[in-house]
Amino acid sequence: MGKGSGRRQDVDDSYIYEKIADHIDLLISKGTYRTGERIPSVRSLAGQMKVSISSVVKAYFHLENLGIIEARPQSGYYVRRRAQQLAGETEPQLPATKPTLVSVNELVMMVMRDASNPDLVPLGLAAPNPDNLPADKLNRILSITARRNKNQAISYDFPPGCERLRVQLAQRALTTGCSLTPDQFVITSGCLEAIMLSLRAVCRPGDTVAIESPLFYSLLQVFEVLDLKALEIPTHPRDGMSISALRYALEHNPVHACLVIPNFNNPLGSQMPDENKEKLVDLLADYEIPLIENDVYGDLGFSRERPVVAKRYDKKGLVILCSSFSKTLAPGYRVGWVVPGRFQERIERLKAVSNIGTATLPQLAIAEFLSTGGYDQHLRRIRGIYSRQTSLMAQAVERSFPRDTRVNSPSGGFVLWVEMPRHVDSIRLYELALKAGITIAPGRIFSAEGKYGNYIRLNAAYWSKRIEDAVAVIGGLAKGMV
Amino acid sequence: MGKGSGRRQDVDDSYIYEKIADHIDLLISKGTYRTGERIPSVRSLAGQMKVSISSVVKAYFHLENLGIIEARPQSGYYVRRRAQQLAGETEPQLPATKPTLVSVNELVMMVMRDASNPDLVPLGLAAPNPDNLPADKLNRILSITARRNKNQAISYDFPPGCERLRVQLAQRALTTGCSLTPDQFVITSGCLEAIMLSLRAVCRPGDTVAIESPLFYSLLQVFEVLDLKALEIPTHPRDGMSISALRYALEHNPVHACLVIPNFNNPLGSQMPDENKEKLVDLLADYEIPLIENDVYGDLGFSRERPVVAKRYDKKGLVILCSSFSKTLAPGYRVGWVVPGRFQERIERLKAVSNIGTATLPQLAIAEFLSTGGYDQHLRRIRGIYSRQTSLMAQAVERSFPRDTRVNSPSGGFVLWVEMPRHVDSIRLYELALKAGITIAPGRIFSAEGKYGNYIRLNAAYWSKRIEDAVAVIGGLAKGMV
Repeated sequence: MGKGSGRRQDVDDSYIYEKIADHIDLLISKGTYRTGERIPSVRSLAGQMKVSISSVVKAYFHLENLGIIEARPQSGYYVRRRAQQLAGETEPQLPATKPTLVSVNELVMMVMRDASNPDLVPLGLAAPNPDNLPADKLNRILSITARRNKNQAISYDFPPGCERLRVQLAQRALTTGCSLTPDQFVITSGCLEAIMLSLRAVCRPGDTVAIESPLFYSLLQVFEVLDLKALEIPTHPRDGMSISALRYALEHNPVHACLVIPNFNNPLGSQMPDENKEKLVDLLADYEIPLIENDVYGDLGFSRERPVVAKRYDKKGLVILCSSFSKTLAPGYRVGWVVPGRFQERIERLKAVSNIGTATLPQLAIAEFLSTGGYDQHLRRIRGIYSRQTSLMAQAVERSFPRDTRVNSPSGGFVLWVEMPRHVDSIRLYELALKAGITIAPGRIFSAEGKYGNYIRLNAAYWSKRIEDAVAVIGGLAKGMV
Repeated sequence: MGKGSGRRQDVDDSYIYEKIADHIDLLISKGTYRTGERIPSVRSLAGQMKVSISSVVKAYFHLENLGIIEARPQSGYYVRRRAQQLAGETEPQLPATKPTLVSVNELVMMVMRDASNPDLVPLGLAAPNPDNLPADKLNRILSITARRNKNQAISYDFPPGCERLRVQLAQRALTTGCSLTPDQFVITSGCLEAIMLSLRAVCRPGDTVAIESPLFYSLLQVFEVLDLKALEIPTHPRDGMSISALRYALEHNPVHACLVIPNFNNPLGSQMPDENKEKLVDLLADYEIPLIENDVYGDLGFSRERPVVAKRYDKKGLVILCSSFSKTLAPGYRVGWVVPGRFQERIERLKAVSNIGTATLPQLAIAEFLSTGGYDQHLRRIRGIYSRQTSLMAQAVERSFPRDTRVNSPSGGFVLWVEMPRHVDSIRLYELALKAGITIAPGRIFSAEGKYGNYIRLNAAYWSKRIEDAVAVIGGLAKGMV
């Protein structure tokens, strides 16, 4: 890269200026410098590329003649607006769809990439609608916090993480049926990181983890990169993982950890009854198997009472509780936590080694938000919204999808799990929906064993006429495949 | 946890209230609720613990009698200030030192923990002094950015990360001798995460990585958790890794990756000459071995010219360039990046699986800071400061340390590597320094092979009379061990 443009000023000068021009043209065409932006001055580019000033002058003159850049008096050289770019901008910005999907991983990355495209109807990811989150209040608190804690805000924050936040988390733990102290928490960059660290703390490559089926695809990706085997345990759409099926599995398989979302499983929306949570903890404790509990949807139940966590029944320190504020407050703040039980020291070390610590300011801001109140009020509001919207979207599915389509009836969270007739291929449906400007999550990515080919997951965090119409479009496309 | 306080309201009530009181007392003694803070209202605690209101009333009355909480009219119950706490607060808050150090890992975690203690003189970590960083400006930009990008600020930002930041990074890459485009960057949560992801992308457990010796301890910890073997290559305090020694090693060992800090190695301060960088890249390319290049100190050289990166000589996409703003702008923002070359797709996926993405706002704020300028001016200022302070601290070491002590003469960065006479045990020195209220980094943690027992690393990012005195104290302690 950049090789050959080194210190050799004795080389034929015309060769050098063409190389410089090519180089700048490439940077412009790749978007390093954009229309209207200033490119480096002649002097600074000459210094950076270690070429003579006259070579750069020639190169810029050449680019000017080609209409790629323009000189502005007393100011420098700027990237020119190009006619063909303008024309292109009016065309719809839909991503190209791939004809054949090579792997589930690629599909997951594609779902995530498409989800970043604001022009698409966002039914794919389980991401909250920012309009329903207290963005103004959080960002304002963040600003004040930054001003008040000037130096702390820019300094490292080592594991276990921001103490003020851990104090708030310990206070809130009571609502989940646990009595926890601040020193039992480790702050992470979101819940997925908490789970990743937990799995790395308790498993070695090749180990087997018992999981719910279907399961949130990112967790399946975690298994793949950690070289873990997933053992899918039958899971009821209302009550969650079957304890008897798990017992049978433990009797017949070597299992090294168990990963469960007892409260409002993604994508099922199921809620494990408290007595099952206790049975689950006791059963795993008999085998000395760690339970990794994902409670990221725990605050988003539709009934008045906040369900307890399985961690409540932990007597041996074997339950590792993971959660975050990504579904309730601000996914972009990347603040989660883990209560590691007996794996505290190992998880703190893994966190330190992974990225030293979590960004300081978002932690301080959320701690402040929690302590000044308003979080419970906010939760009540969005729980109402999600309860209403999952119901409205389920009705829309029933109206427009093929006959014999079945939709879950979640007890919390904001996603729907839709089972269509068997011949509907949800990956094909994904591609067709994308062409219509809509993203969905195909069921295939929720299983390590190739199940759920005729399922999709829909995000009900958004609701409007546009969303309702999009659901009808997907229903129509699915009907065409029956 | 919290078990037994369940739904059984028929149990003897006196037993219940004692349990509730014990529970609240534990939370207070562990710091969940602190002096002067309000504890949950009777009503809410009864709801949370699923016990009767009268039980909680009795429990609070009991705690009040014990002087642990106090009722405030119209307001609720508060944690009382305790006499013995007040007395304790006047004592110096020095951490307990462990008599025997079990492992390097524990030592590293201890160094990090001690570094978070603001009462200690901070010579241990390689962390910048926040007073030398543009904290006000960054935090102000962050506030404005949050206000202007309300919804984006709280939303997920998926790999490869914030485009505005990647455009800025691509523009700055010119100063390092590379022509890179925005789509060649992946944003990470700091440089250590970039390196961690790179190693996971190119190595499998059991693989061997050629490294400089001595090497920054966190990287050695990364090897341990990834189950990689470190092959220490002799490294010159001025010129960095010996290319001939590396060649010999490659001829005689299976090596799967090479990790190097060519510009201003931590802790040596060495700078690899450009011709060696090219030789390094070409040599590894002959063997098809990926080079992971850590350039986190690259912007902090003491000479006028910013050194190029080895990535500049990459023809095969085998060089993975890692860096961050943690040494130059704001460690607490946790913003770094990787240029993954041919491992782009894999590293993007590993990043997504590790924590979905990096916090959004710090990325936006740094992009804005870079585009509005002032970064180069800031760099000039801190490079001057570090050049002066490393020199002043080296002189202080020469004045007070035992005879035959040798100090490196760094070409950049802000750490000193101090070799003391052989009988000086730097772990013992660490313990003694800690008792004197000073943290240092013992040399032992910079080697996977137990080397550098008589070395220490000192952080010269701070300089004042207090620091100068601390260096003299350590010198005196070291003299006592000769």
